[in-house]
Amino acid sequence: MSSNEELLDNTQPILYSYWRSSCSWRVRICLNLKEIPYDIKPISLIKSGGEQHCNEYREVNPMEQVPALQIDGHTLVESLAIMQYLEETRPQRPLMPQDFHKRAKVRELCEIIASGIQPLQNLIVLIHVGEEKKKEWAQHWITRGFRAVEKLLSTSAGKYCVGDEITLADCCLIPQVFNARRFHVDLRPFPIILRIDRELESHPAFRAAHPSSQPDSPPEITK
Amino acid sequence: MSSNEELLDNTQPILYSYWRSSCSWRVRICLNLKEIPYDIKPISLIKSGGEQHCNEYREVNPMEQVPALQIDGHTLVESLAIMQYLEETRPQRPLMPQDFHKRAKVRELCEIIASGIQPLQNLIVLIHVGEEKKKEWAQHWITRGFRAVEKLLSTSAGKYCVGDEITLADCCLIPQVFNARRFHVDLRPFPIILRIDRELESHPAFRAAHPSSQPDSPPEITK
Repeated sequence: MSSNEELLDNTQPILYSYWRSSCSWRVRICLNLKEIPYDIKPISLIKSGGEQHCNEYREVNPMEQVPALQIDGHTLVESLAIMQYLEETRPQRPLMPQDFHKRAKVRELCEIIASGIQPLQNLIVLIHVGEEKKKEWAQHWITRGFRAVEKLLSTSAGKYCVGDEITLADCCLIPQVFNARRFHVDLRPFPIILRIDRELESHPAFRAAHPSSQPDSPPEITK
Repeated sequence: MSSNEELLDNTQPILYSYWRSSCSWRVRICLNLKEIPYDIKPISLIKSGGEQHCNEYREVNPMEQVPALQIDGHTLVESLAIMQYLEETRPQRPLMPQDFHKRAKVRELCEIIASGIQPLQNLIVLIHVGEEKKKEWAQHWITRGFRAVEKLLSTSAGKYCVGDEITLADCCLIPQVFNARRFHVDLRPFPIILRIDRELESHPAFRAAHPSSQPDSPPEITK
């Protein structure tokens, strides 16, 4: 796909991000691992009923969600689409294995988290579920998804989710573990998930992407 | 990735599928478009409280969902992971553009449907939402997602979702339109979605994948 190379440009990408958004966090990890410099434009999901719903941002991302990434003269949305675009256009420090079957394993784990867990426990859904039931609701869907993730990891994991190299699956898993803790999910039944989380917690690319290290993190949680 | 070729085998793939499951349907379209012969093993999401929850099937797909595809000596789960595996291993009749930016557009549309719409209106979530509220709930999330899809299509679509060739985005869109109709979503605000749906309704690969053409479709809906 070398004919595509002229599409890339050197303007620094802009990531529309919210400090605690797990989908923004996935992309931050990916950008950091690939050592792609980027600017963050914070979008508060809380302030004024959510800045993601304002007219200006709706033009950036019609789903009214973070993240969105301005890069190479385009605006991209949906974290998995963004991460795979980065993987295809910036192959340095690959985050997908070469082997077809392992690539499928990475995508299975990404999709279980991105479509089977996160959408059911994100802010906009919890608002609809209501204050009273939201903790139980989030715990239910995260536990169900983690059961499947743990089972898949029992055959795919090495040091990380798929083998011994960091992949897009790890970029998705770590933010979801943080969300699980926020909702007080019992993580003891998931030893492989916990081991990978511990393995990556001190990794510089993951630390720099952590909610507590963001320009828009509230002062009380900044490390 | 020619070193991967030895992984492929000629045993006919087996698709675990349910006639009305939109995620199974995506994969059926993809297999049909690529002219990959396959056998269907029906998993009833209704019978006996859902055959997807039985111990035997849980070994096939730990998310206890359809589809799953047995192929090349492996079992794959998650429709988008399966479709991208098929695209990488069976490049005949490509369902992804070559251009990086258009590939991102295809994945954005797939992800909006697969993570932003479908998980919020699937059977297992609607059971939790309850009989009384389920129609309104499904309409809300489908309408919200289709607003974003229509907006993205306004710049990406040609004859189909992205340009003039059928892509994985079309494999995701058509089943979601069917679900929208099931929940009586007002589709008049989405003229591009409706045009693409009409364009593809008579396509042989889409017709053969339709819920009414499945070995497990109930007699009253079989065409």
